[in-house]
Amino acid sequence: MKRRKFLKKSAVFTGAVGAGVAAPSIVQARTEMSIVSTWPRDFPGLGTSAQRLAARITELTGGRIRTRYYASGEKVGAFDSFDAAASGNAEAYIGVDYYWKGKHPGWAFFAAVPFGLTYTEMDAWMKYAGGQELHDELGRQFAIKPWPCGNTGVQMGGWFNKEISSIDDFKGLKMRIPGLGGDVISKLGASPVSLPGSQIFENLVSGAVDATEWVGPYNDYFMKFYEAAKYYYYPGMHEPGGQLTLGVNLRWWDKLSKSEQAIIQTACNEENARQMAETNANNSLYLAKLIDDHGVKLRQFDDDIFDGFGEAAAEVMAEVRQHDPLTQKIHDSFDRARTEIGRWSGLSDAPFILQRNRVMELN
Amino acid sequence: MKRRKFLKKSAVFTGAVGAGVAAPSIVQARTEMSIVSTWPRDFPGLGTSAQRLAARITELTGGRIRTRYYASGEKVGAFDSFDAAASGNAEAYIGVDYYWKGKHPGWAFFAAVPFGLTYTEMDAWMKYAGGQELHDELGRQFAIKPWPCGNTGVQMGGWFNKEISSIDDFKGLKMRIPGLGGDVISKLGASPVSLPGSQIFENLVSGAVDATEWVGPYNDYFMKFYEAAKYYYYPGMHEPGGQLTLGVNLRWWDKLSKSEQAIIQTACNEENARQMAETNANNSLYLAKLIDDHGVKLRQFDDDIFDGFGEAAAEVMAEVRQHDPLTQKIHDSFDRARTEIGRWSGLSDAPFILQRNRVMELN
Repeated sequence: MKRRKFLKKSAVFTGAVGAGVAAPSIVQARTEMSIVSTWPRDFPGLGTSAQRLAARITELTGGRIRTRYYASGEKVGAFDSFDAAASGNAEAYIGVDYYWKGKHPGWAFFAAVPFGLTYTEMDAWMKYAGGQELHDELGRQFAIKPWPCGNTGVQMGGWFNKEISSIDDFKGLKMRIPGLGGDVISKLGASPVSLPGSQIFENLVSGAVDATEWVGPYNDYFMKFYEAAKYYYYPGMHEPGGQLTLGVNLRWWDKLSKSEQAIIQTACNEENARQMAETNANNSLYLAKLIDDHGVKLRQFDDDIFDGFGEAAAEVMAEVRQHDPLTQKIHDSFDRARTEIGRWSGLSDAPFILQRNRVMELN
Repeated sequence: MKRRKFLKKSAVFTGAVGAGVAAPSIVQARTEMSIVSTWPRDFPGLGTSAQRLAARITELTGGRIRTRYYASGEKVGAFDSFDAAASGNAEAYIGVDYYWKGKHPGWAFFAAVPFGLTYTEMDAWMKYAGGQELHDELGRQFAIKPWPCGNTGVQMGGWFNKEISSIDDFKGLKMRIPGLGGDVISKLGASPVSLPGSQIFENLVSGAVDATEWVGPYNDYFMKFYEAAKYYYYPGMHEPGGQLTLGVNLRWWDKLSKSEQAIIQTACNEENARQMAETNANNSLYLAKLIDDHGVKLRQFDDDIFDGFGEAAAEVMAEVRQHDPLTQKIHDSFDRARTEIGRWSGLSDAPFILQRNRVMELN
């Protein structure tokens, strides 16, 4: 009964995938690929991107690799998806690799770290400055072959129920901000809180937390944070280019043909850019709604606040680096990419955007 | 004889493509795809990216679509590649679409225009804000199905043999800068000159031109401009995210299966991001060489100069818009994307990069 129910559910999905492709009914699947995800089904942006990637692999292989996508809880819980892929209970996971930093702190660098890399910088590091090789080296320790497969870009700094005019305003502040970003504000005297997305709004309304970060205008809009906190700060220091990963079971990966491996890689590369494009387009639309329809007040973290963030982040990252030789190696490669590629960003995208927006009055 | 020589040449290339793929000798190509390019063979960055895309299409289709890549001059001249693809003499071209603005000014918007979109903004416009639909509409008038397939990002402002301290310094300046960027500086009293890449260096050395732009540190390094002009200005206003296009003959495209079409699309999407990553990684390395090994002096165009650029660019773009209803439609969609997505860039990538680089002293 369970098996039949499962087949019925996934059949709906495969039907959508197969539309316009060589008819699935006459294609013999050479192999099936279960993908367990950390996102709820149809979760806007993150979940829909993961579902699109799963569908694309089936489409591009003409059905030779038939993917079965499981949202969080449909096969395993969100935070069990890594173990499911590593053990072979599923063929792959989709998630944010900092979820696994308890297994090894190196994973965080392939998702996002405070004062880290933007999307284009991350992509340059991964593909042309040693990032993928290190991601692979770390993955091998867990029998995982990882591929970047999405990015949500620079996050907003968060929602606050009062203005933040100096770094001292973080003292005693209760803020929902998980992971290394939370470690940074903890050093500033704040109390970082981890809360699942579903519980943030009620905690913000009740005053149990004073502030929260989430993602950006598009994702934040649906969380209705603006009802409880009017000050929306930019830019965030904590996740400047949050990268998603498809982590494939390495034994299964090694059995694929070179051509099948190439198709999975190319589908991930395509979705990596596509999710960023979708997020940027939607962030711009929902930012306008937040300001025009809901009276949200945009505020910028000033230089003094960023100086404080910077000192605290340096301490946090120095501690992370101490863990073991592989973490040091990843940290130092990431650091070099930031110095070199980040310097170029400081002469290209950043000054061009500022000058264009200033001259054309786009801000 | 000619035919045999050609086969021998392309066999070398296909051999490289086929490495690690289902052995080409036992795969029956369903169709062949000649791609004529605007770049010399093995031209670093631009040419190598185009060759990689051609190879990838063969690889991803397991040889069902066998691509034959022709560098500029190998089948037709660079500027005849559009007509070759439109007529069916080749199945596709790879080039920068502003090359075809004499056929229709709308093409320029899908490559780069002054004060236009950065790579991530362009990708958001193309995929999620109406850009691809307009690219298709324009393409149909020429029997072309266009796909973005590369981007070289924000260009530097150029090489100058003296410092540019006010907008008046452009009066009487002879500068190699083609297209709409040239039209902008012409309005400032400069004399824009069009020169092919191979002739720029000698003209700069002889003093026939006072200044030149090209691309960015990676591409410019090999042109040795630093021997004749020490001042290297940023950011460029003229090409903030130069996009490349694979333009496919529409009648041939329509005969492909949905699955083959999907593979060409995904290969283009992959290469679009990959070329950007490669360019960013290399720009950072070659920028350091230029400064450390060749004494290049970096200078930033100031606010007054950008104000002058902005006024002149507004005049140029208003003139372009007048051409016909389709150009107006493309211009206005592009303009809306710049207002909306550009505003988001001004709250995310730009301020984050500036704060991070300032705090970490990366510039």
